[in-house]
Amino acid sequence: MNLIRKDTIIALATPQGVGAIGVIRISGADCISLVERFFWTKNLKLKKLSDKPSHTLHFGIIAHLDVVIDEVVVSLYKAPHSYTGEESVEISCHGSPFILQQVLALFLKNGCRMAEPGEFTMRAFLNGKLDLSQAEAVADLIASNSAVSHQVAMQQMRGGFSSKIKLLRDHLLNFASLIELELDFSEEDVEFADRSDLKKLIFQISNIILKLLESFEVGNVIKNGIPVAIVGKPNAGKSTLLNLLLDDDKAIVSEIPGTTRDVIEDEMVIDGVLFRFIDTAGIRTTTDIIEQMGVNKAFEVIKKSAIVVYLFDSHELSSGDLKLEVDLIKQHINGSKLVLVANKIDVEGEEALRKEYAGFKDLLYISAKEGKNINELRNKLVALFDAKAVSATDTIVTNARHAESLRKALML
Amino acid sequence: MNLIRKDTIIALATPQGVGAIGVIRISGADCISLVERFFWTKNLKLKKLSDKPSHTLHFGIIAHLDVVIDEVVVSLYKAPHSYTGEESVEISCHGSPFILQQVLALFLKNGCRMAEPGEFTMRAFLNGKLDLSQAEAVADLIASNSAVSHQVAMQQMRGGFSSKIKLLRDHLLNFASLIELELDFSEEDVEFADRSDLKKLIFQISNIILKLLESFEVGNVIKNGIPVAIVGKPNAGKSTLLNLLLDDDKAIVSEIPGTTRDVIEDEMVIDGVLFRFIDTAGIRTTTDIIEQMGVNKAFEVIKKSAIVVYLFDSHELSSGDLKLEVDLIKQHINGSKLVLVANKIDVEGEEALRKEYAGFKDLLYISAKEGKNINELRNKLVALFDAKAVSATDTIVTNARHAESLRKALML
Repeated sequence: MNLIRKDTIIALATPQGVGAIGVIRISGADCISLVERFFWTKNLKLKKLSDKPSHTLHFGIIAHLDVVIDEVVVSLYKAPHSYTGEESVEISCHGSPFILQQVLALFLKNGCRMAEPGEFTMRAFLNGKLDLSQAEAVADLIASNSAVSHQVAMQQMRGGFSSKIKLLRDHLLNFASLIELELDFSEEDVEFADRSDLKKLIFQISNIILKLLESFEVGNVIKNGIPVAIVGKPNAGKSTLLNLLLDDDKAIVSEIPGTTRDVIEDEMVIDGVLFRFIDTAGIRTTTDIIEQMGVNKAFEVIKKSAIVVYLFDSHELSSGDLKLEVDLIKQHINGSKLVLVANKIDVEGEEALRKEYAGFKDLLYISAKEGKNINELRNKLVALFDAKAVSATDTIVTNARHAESLRKALML
Repeated sequence: MNLIRKDTIIALATPQGVGAIGVIRISGADCISLVERFFWTKNLKLKKLSDKPSHTLHFGIIAHLDVVIDEVVVSLYKAPHSYTGEESVEISCHGSPFILQQVLALFLKNGCRMAEPGEFTMRAFLNGKLDLSQAEAVADLIASNSAVSHQVAMQQMRGGFSSKIKLLRDHLLNFASLIELELDFSEEDVEFADRSDLKKLIFQISNIILKLLESFEVGNVIKNGIPVAIVGKPNAGKSTLLNLLLDDDKAIVSEIPGTTRDVIEDEMVIDGVLFRFIDTAGIRTTTDIIEQMGVNKAFEVIKKSAIVVYLFDSHELSSGDLKLEVDLIKQHINGSKLVLVANKIDVEGEEALRKEYAGFKDLLYISAKEGKNINELRNKLVALFDAKAVSATDTIVTNARHAESLRKALML
């Protein structure tokens, strides 16, 4: 299949809905002369566009058969100085869905084709305006919903990942040429590279790949949110805590132990980092089958979480009991970090509690009901996620395809 | 209050949501130098904007304190050649709500104020870029949802109404100057205008105003839809017909007579004209109080409708009964047009029916159940709305404020 298609594509570039303006994008070799056919001055004289320089704005009217569709501003981008690398036009219309529909219909009837999702970016890639990893970053950038995921996508779109890959490629080419020289002149008594140098080079390369691969774990949670499981005995206050964190009331909060049967997920951004909170049914031995299913699910969630918050009712658990609970959870934990949180410090004095649980370092004392020390917990979560790993200059792999390719490269 | 404010305003110009791009609009004397402070080249060198000509596009990066917020395209509009008439900038960002939020926040922190609804258009008016009626048309244009309402708003925005008013003003100034001359030189024996000329002028002026006022009736229905009441005895098939017209199932369709108790409204566009259909409870004598309320409401609806569709079951009504029904409806009709529709022609042969109702000209024969002749009804509705009244060149008053001012002018 020939990926490079020369036809003219069109799409609404701005979100659906009513606004002050809506922008329609057209790209393809013929697009400027196409728009010219329906572009008029205020006094309905045809207005030239093809003789105008690139990167200029033109006020005029889109009209067809005496019907004025809209007063618009046309942005002119001449090849190769456009997003797609082709001749491109953006038409800034009044933000009425009816008008935008009319303009789209006019050009669809006159030689444009509706662009497929991502087709403008694909053309940018095919025309060498972006490399593949940059093109992939555009979608991540638009979907980014936290400061960190935004920075990582931006870094990738600006070529951070590409330059790292280019470096690797240079190293590999260097290695390959040395090996080839050795093979070509193996009969002769010249050594172009000693064995230890070659080994060192390979070690360096695999080291870079390994680092990039490791960054995928961070990259993945940045993109999809850091999964945080909130676990604890029934009625320890998990739903109340979750609601407090989410400032929302999606979980069912009741006084009857064991009411949260489903796993509830919700996301929030703390200090620019996206967290995905997962409430679970309480962990306890139970005869209720549905609830038991919930408990099993809780252990599954623990396995998949990066951070496990173990919440307990501070006036129901002795330090000995707590020790047993922590041991039980640790059996199911899979490399994730555990945060112990003593709840309901409103009921009993914090002082006495601190004495009781003195054996547990880093234990947090909160009151989910009164919202006490919740910010401490928030800070703790952010601290556990190693923010240094995502400084703006670091290269982080967020794309599963990239990770897979890197993994394959290591196998060689 | 000084309406003209010189501060710099900012707003998201495109609809909320995720898209390929989102546009932020900034307007005010300082806006170009403000944007310049955060506008960079790809290599993070500050990029000049103020020395660039108006109506040009500039690719660059919006960044603050080493954080790249987005790669953007800036549209430059220099006063007075902008929408508002002030220095203006549009920033075309990637269509991520997060990014747009960051850009807005950056400029809000650095000297911009969030624009109030309609403030860009208000500034355009205050700076003489649009007159008041044109400015008012912008909102109508964005809200337009049918070909006719779109054309009327477009005509008004392009100055159609304004030029008509200007003509009136010229006539009135002419009249005033003639009168003043007469007063100034009343002692002398010179007559500048004879009485009949003055009368003629006043007659002309009031005639134009009257025509404009009359157009408001049409203008109002264009903007808000032409109200069509569907009335008839219980179980004549009103809900089935309405559903068929709306291609929807908002009305409750049942076999029990009298199930439609509320007045249900819905809109649809036929041939570019917006119709607002109103289903009503059946008209009949009833002891059921709730239903009686429905019947009274039906008569109210008839009074307010431009078109009344009287629907009847063709095998339940003799031509004599039909005559009585039509007389009853005509008592409540208030200048609106009546369409008689014989339903259920599937049950009895159309031929026999046409003989029975031969006395009623223009009667339509349909089957709502089978969708037979529904397009005839649609065409009839469009024909009843005088489309000639809204040719693209006619001036139609759609704004209540304008109608009120014209009414006041006539009182003088």
